[in-house]
Amino acid sequence: MNKPETPDIIISRLPVYLRALQHMDAQGKQTTSSLDLGEQVGISAAQIRKDLSQFGEFGKQGTGYNIAFLIGKLREILKVDRVWDVAVIGMGDMGHAIARYQGFSDRGFRVSMVFDNDPAKVGERVGHFVIQDTQEMVGTIRRAGIKVAMLCVPASKAQQVANQLVEAEIKAILNYSPINLNVPPGVRVQYLDPSVGLQRMTYYMD
Amino acid sequence: MNKPETPDIIISRLPVYLRALQHMDAQGKQTTSSLDLGEQVGISAAQIRKDLSQFGEFGKQGTGYNIAFLIGKLREILKVDRVWDVAVIGMGDMGHAIARYQGFSDRGFRVSMVFDNDPAKVGERVGHFVIQDTQEMVGTIRRAGIKVAMLCVPASKAQQVANQLVEAEIKAILNYSPINLNVPPGVRVQYLDPSVGLQRMTYYMD
Repeated sequence: MNKPETPDIIISRLPVYLRALQHMDAQGKQTTSSLDLGEQVGISAAQIRKDLSQFGEFGKQGTGYNIAFLIGKLREILKVDRVWDVAVIGMGDMGHAIARYQGFSDRGFRVSMVFDNDPAKVGERVGHFVIQDTQEMVGTIRRAGIKVAMLCVPASKAQQVANQLVEAEIKAILNYSPINLNVPPGVRVQYLDPSVGLQRMTYYMD
Repeated sequence: MNKPETPDIIISRLPVYLRALQHMDAQGKQTTSSLDLGEQVGISAAQIRKDLSQFGEFGKQGTGYNIAFLIGKLREILKVDRVWDVAVIGMGDMGHAIARYQGFSDRGFRVSMVFDNDPAKVGERVGHFVIQDTQEMVGTIRRAGIKVAMLCVPASKAQQVANQLVEAEIKAILNYSPINLNVPPGVRVQYLDPSVGLQRMTYYMD
């Protein structure tokens, strides 16, 4: 592995390859090629070969990739050969949906705590979880050693809650609030903003 | 405008600039600089100037950008100087959350129809909407002239529903299902998969 030199744009494609490979695996396929994988994910075969070659020699000329093996390698590279506990902050509609989302299994994540600041919600159940008070959040997350959080609070509260997550030693924030967060070096943020996704497409429309 | 030559990576940043500018505007700010905007969005001032210069001269040396003017220009470029009607397919937890999401106002979108294939859900209310039957979906969407859809169905159904959306003349699909979709040229897909966002960050973690 060659981490410091691997551009983030390559890293951003690996989860997409992994998802497609896991889908093939679930369908009972055992081998694939860069061409086949490329068709699945809409990326050229040459790009896929180049991306994967950053991390080693995973395929054989002529026989392609063993799917289970490549899944194992990508999970190792992306560090999802383990399960990360995740805290979800903000139990509005989106937080509820995430707390009950079944799609994290086999992807490396498990929601393990949910928080809200509304006294009327604290103590309520959502799926398997009891909603905890954000007033206790910093200590609770830190003691549990949780490093990953999803932020589903209103935009007006997002920076303030992000600051608390940093204090709680969270290192990765998936932000559903439509606002950019300022976090110190060593903390990463990814954004899931539906309007951004939509605007990237309307640009191309008539 | 210089559309055929503008790389998609630049287009992908414009909605992020627009979001930050709208946030500044809401806070009553009137002017900004590439440095200031860059700090908000975590992108270098030079990159921002370069990106915006693809579309014209929007700032003045020394005085920076007029926020309202730049918002207007970006909305025009991204074609969200209008409001796009959006169909939401799949009224599970995520579809419900989207149907009630308040964040689309001022971003160029308005949910206008929601669909599900479950007879027990069809006819029910979600927010302002009555859930319609996916059996009627192709004709209903086509007659309404809707071009944008959000897909929130289980992964196992996503490709099949995407095919119907293509038939309905949808041109932009925001896909919440954790699966890659195959669509013909002229139809665009963007993905909102939380596991992909999380895996892009765990790569960098210890």
